[in-house]
Amino acid sequence: MRIPFAKLKSEFKRVLLSLDFTDEKAEKCATTFAENSRDGVYTHGLNRFPVFIDMIKQGLIKPDAEPTKVGGFGAIEQWDGNLAPGILNATFCMNRAIELAKTNGIGCIAIKNTNHWMRAGTYGWQAADAGMIGICFTNTIANIPPWGGIDPRLGNNPLVIAVPRAEGNVVLDMAISQYSVGKLQQYKMNNEQLPLPGGYDKDGKLSTDPTVVLEAKRALPIGFWKGSGLSLMLDLLASILSQGNSTGKITQSEKESGVSQVFICIKPQDNDYTANIIEEILNYTKSSRPEYEGGSISYPGENTLKTREKSLAKGVLVDDRIWQKVQAL
Amino acid sequence: MRIPFAKLKSEFKRVLLSLDFTDEKAEKCATTFAENSRDGVYTHGLNRFPVFIDMIKQGLIKPDAEPTKVGGFGAIEQWDGNLAPGILNATFCMNRAIELAKTNGIGCIAIKNTNHWMRAGTYGWQAADAGMIGICFTNTIANIPPWGGIDPRLGNNPLVIAVPRAEGNVVLDMAISQYSVGKLQQYKMNNEQLPLPGGYDKDGKLSTDPTVVLEAKRALPIGFWKGSGLSLMLDLLASILSQGNSTGKITQSEKESGVSQVFICIKPQDNDYTANIIEEILNYTKSSRPEYEGGSISYPGENTLKTREKSLAKGVLVDDRIWQKVQAL
Repeated sequence: MRIPFAKLKSEFKRVLLSLDFTDEKAEKCATTFAENSRDGVYTHGLNRFPVFIDMIKQGLIKPDAEPTKVGGFGAIEQWDGNLAPGILNATFCMNRAIELAKTNGIGCIAIKNTNHWMRAGTYGWQAADAGMIGICFTNTIANIPPWGGIDPRLGNNPLVIAVPRAEGNVVLDMAISQYSVGKLQQYKMNNEQLPLPGGYDKDGKLSTDPTVVLEAKRALPIGFWKGSGLSLMLDLLASILSQGNSTGKITQSEKESGVSQVFICIKPQDNDYTANIIEEILNYTKSSRPEYEGGSISYPGENTLKTREKSLAKGVLVDDRIWQKVQAL
Repeated sequence: MRIPFAKLKSEFKRVLLSLDFTDEKAEKCATTFAENSRDGVYTHGLNRFPVFIDMIKQGLIKPDAEPTKVGGFGAIEQWDGNLAPGILNATFCMNRAIELAKTNGIGCIAIKNTNHWMRAGTYGWQAADAGMIGICFTNTIANIPPWGGIDPRLGNNPLVIAVPRAEGNVVLDMAISQYSVGKLQQYKMNNEQLPLPGGYDKDGKLSTDPTVVLEAKRALPIGFWKGSGLSLMLDLLASILSQGNSTGKITQSEKESGVSQVFICIKPQDNDYTANIIEEILNYTKSSRPEYEGGSISYPGENTLKTREKSLAKGVLVDDRIWQKVQAL
């Protein structure tokens, strides 16, 4: 089922206004949730909205809280998110990083005690739309085992790298697990096998069965030992720079709240060389012969733009059951 | 065969002094090559030294060149490497990034027209030894196909993230391919199969045979489409920020020379929270039950320190044939 973007957004806003949201904050959160579904990231758009509302009702997310500055030195700053909605805190932080990069060429904001920012890519698009290279990442609750271990001790710690481009930003938005928990649940719900192994079964064999992987709690990090190391490093950076909670601390409380995040912006040189080198890299990548006849090679963010266009023209794809659930909130 | 670290280093220095190296530059390059072998990265220590010498003789690496500043704004700077030895340029750049981070909290140096920096991790250790968080990456010649394609169009673009720690720095040093070209060649030379699939055969099947993967030129990026996207982004950042050559341009010339690199340093808060959170994260990660009885979980850089200790106590492991070759240079 498809519904108009404006309707999706206004429904979110209606629900948020019934809680402790100001009009401005409700508008911003509703827009981002609707945009996430519009861009095809359903797991962090409509599908996650009921969880978000539930966490507000539990007091884990505080709609009236504001981030406060804790420290800063030169082009880096530390902020406390005070458990405000993750979307609002993250948007605020990327804006600050953009401002710092305008003045210093580069800027880095770290925030502690914030909440799930929903789609990581949102803040990459935000930086790139402002003409900045954006890099951001978050830690999460433990959901993948470290290399050589079987108990989850690392987060899938989504990482975003975004490059501004007039014809469409290039935005990589990836969790460190091969499939996000949301994706595994989606495949499970649809009774589908994963296209490639997504983790291990309880006997340590690689598996394409999402149910088996979820039950064993052994989702696979990208590149085996490499993703395991990368996830650890991102947790270290987020926790050290924000002086906030690590994946271990977040996991102890069992609810994914009070996470740590980092936002870095770099100002690219706005000249012909920059514009040309981006096209050269994308064209060169696309010049690889496709694996299957009729196949094509996409750059990160390319399919997002296609989905966005379709959603705006034909309406945003929604899961009927969840849409009904939100309308009843 | 094991030889003393000092002997390995002095042999390298002897060869370099016979070319156009000043005493200072020969000392620095010889030290880094010897340290790379000492730390167990043989592919970018002794084993690569003859290739380095060959590239100097071909004029692709210029021992007497110096990096020159091209531009800068706030805490970011652009440099031209003028094809000087990659080790010298990279060490210089990380030093500049450290200086910028001391003044601004964060600093970013991009360099174009530089050469292979040998072991990527070298510059992570350099930053961490100076008490800084270090992030650096380089582009390379195309050696992995993009996701959905069969011709190599992306580099394996090594990425380093380093965190300073009194009891031993935490340093991730990873190429974006599951196995580096050097590793694939090493397995091939030893007639060994890879422990996990390292790429595709010419029919597009995942393979653990290094010979088959090398012949098909289809090494696997970590995490399939994710590593493919990550490699592309690192090439974009390196080329844009340095205004230098992309993987495509480097590949055109067929010799891996004139690459682009980025060095970022961030000053961590030097307090108890930082020290404690690092231990907490490492201990939590290690608390995962091992996959096999007697197994253990290591943090990035932990095994490097063990190898280093052993090399200094018992001598550095060298390949007899290559050691003889270097002695004859």
